[in-house]
Amino acid sequence: MTSQDASYDTIRAVEWHDGVLKLIDQRLLPARYEVLSFERAADVAQAITDMVVRGAPAIGVTAAYGVVLAVQECYARSPASWKSDVPALLGLLRRSRPTAVNLFWALDRMERVMAPLQQDPLPMLLAEAKAIHEEDIVANRRMGDLGAALMDEVGCVLTHCNTGSLATGGYGTALGVIRSAWSEGRIDHVYADETRPWLQGARLTAWELVQDSIPVTLIVEGAAASLMRTGKVKWVIVGADRITANGDVANKIGTYGLAVLAKHHGVKFMVVAPSTTIDMTLSRGEDIPIETRPESEVLCLGAQRVAAEGAHAWNPSFDMTPAALIDAIVTERGVLLKPNSEGMARLMGG
Amino acid sequence: MTSQDASYDTIRAVEWHDGVLKLIDQRLLPARYEVLSFERAADVAQAITDMVVRGAPAIGVTAAYGVVLAVQECYARSPASWKSDVPALLGLLRRSRPTAVNLFWALDRMERVMAPLQQDPLPMLLAEAKAIHEEDIVANRRMGDLGAALMDEVGCVLTHCNTGSLATGGYGTALGVIRSAWSEGRIDHVYADETRPWLQGARLTAWELVQDSIPVTLIVEGAAASLMRTGKVKWVIVGADRITANGDVANKIGTYGLAVLAKHHGVKFMVVAPSTTIDMTLSRGEDIPIETRPESEVLCLGAQRVAAEGAHAWNPSFDMTPAALIDAIVTERGVLLKPNSEGMARLMGG
Repeated sequence: MTSQDASYDTIRAVEWHDGVLKLIDQRLLPARYEVLSFERAADVAQAITDMVVRGAPAIGVTAAYGVVLAVQECYARSPASWKSDVPALLGLLRRSRPTAVNLFWALDRMERVMAPLQQDPLPMLLAEAKAIHEEDIVANRRMGDLGAALMDEVGCVLTHCNTGSLATGGYGTALGVIRSAWSEGRIDHVYADETRPWLQGARLTAWELVQDSIPVTLIVEGAAASLMRTGKVKWVIVGADRITANGDVANKIGTYGLAVLAKHHGVKFMVVAPSTTIDMTLSRGEDIPIETRPESEVLCLGAQRVAAEGAHAWNPSFDMTPAALIDAIVTERGVLLKPNSEGMARLMGG
Repeated sequence: MTSQDASYDTIRAVEWHDGVLKLIDQRLLPARYEVLSFERAADVAQAITDMVVRGAPAIGVTAAYGVVLAVQECYARSPASWKSDVPALLGLLRRSRPTAVNLFWALDRMERVMAPLQQDPLPMLLAEAKAIHEEDIVANRRMGDLGAALMDEVGCVLTHCNTGSLATGGYGTALGVIRSAWSEGRIDHVYADETRPWLQGARLTAWELVQDSIPVTLIVEGAAASLMRTGKVKWVIVGADRITANGDVANKIGTYGLAVLAKHHGVKFMVVAPSTTIDMTLSRGEDIPIETRPESEVLCLGAQRVAAEGAHAWNPSFDMTPAALIDAIVTERGVLLKPNSEGMARLMGG
């Protein structure tokens, strides 16, 4: 069985179908599987903000299709003035979430294609959005192979948040490496942080792995240190929302703590992300804008208030892991061991 | 305002009233404040297992009153043979939870008092249970003063789980130190881990602090490392369920990870526990039995399944923090800085 085996890759979070963008509503999983349809860019921007779709690469792919919808809408209204109407809608997409750089990368790429277009812009733009989507899946397959090849000792892995098909165009980044390594017999067992406050690990990663028949055991974040202390875990494997020019990584809150714990326990730490996640315009992680989300996400479970009235919460959605704590950054361009500025420049320049 | 100010200590989780043991049902807080009444030792044992009451010192106090109920029940049934009937009930109490040593300490102490008694055993046993309860509160007040005195730089603290009035006879261990230090102006702000899977931080610690007008901000465990990186947190302050002869500490899952993170960030780490928590018969933390609780506590939120069907969970309720990661163990007998076997022997022998 190889990593190309379709049985380990059955889910698509984002799909284009006949002029309509379809998104799995990830807020409802695993209790309900529901696919929402979008025909307006403004609704797509709101869906990104509301986390109908999440995960840096999936947000990028979604935004690309969002540009197609924006142009479709403006062109239908006025084939003459569509081009002056579109920027307002693109602004909504651009402001939908602040941390993942794939969003801005996808919008920039779509705008470059759009720039020379006048009449009948849709076919070119749709082709570009589909290319972004397809390239992401191809990149994930490649990263799966590269990342799995690093795992030369069979053992357990620990992952955080959801970095699978639901977080990307398909197959996944960190979860893509796990899919590939599992199919190659390099992994004994997958542990997944439940990943508070959104429980992406419990709700999404567990769901994906169960769909693809890969056994998974959830832990609360507080149990990660004890799990590492048992010696079972060989690698912590995570995704990224933005990587700076020195190899620092912004990713889901909890990632940085895992990296510190991994270093303490001699567990290796792998970041898996397409090169579209890399932002060479920022020199270090401290420069990455970190989204703080509503405190209700911590104080409530669903609609039910859990914490006492009067209590507050601090709810940063991401954290920053310094390059010094990372053993390998895996991209579709290649693997960078012990990342630093020189290595990042080599990776992105080559 | 001193640490004796009643306004910072208004809650009692365990109370004896007229032949009946009253326990706040901590599973319902903060949504509902409900007090359950117990007249049978078997029900008390079940309540401990089911976490109606939790927290090592509170479990000890509860078990002491449970012995009174056991004897009350057996003596009422047969003043002649009560003493041969009681051990079965005491066995239920002894098996109610495995990790907190205060449970066994309280049962042993009650049994020593019971040993010579024949006729009319209740007054002596009730007096002993009340003494255990009162001594716990006095010890917590003393620890509050000793722990607060260590905090010579005003700043924020981070605490884990619930170690307050709800977890003890009253006032609290780690939360007692926080109450004292707050009243003395040594703390800027209290951060509390929400503490998955039971959310003792969100449900209980936040509730207690709001009741006593101490401002509190909750974080998910995954945000602790980022919080420490800001430099705001001067101390992590936690309780303990058992401390071994070398100063290793078993406490709520997540504690060990916090200790590793604190060391990495130069944040000091304080363990606050009465000497009844110290088990000099165990030489090191690896010997402490760690309770593993049902995986449903991680896979479900209340009655609602959150994780995909088919996913599993590993749910250890406690972890072990090596003495080397601890800056201070605060007991009512005094403070031990940089704990080790020699210091522990001195503390317990003195």
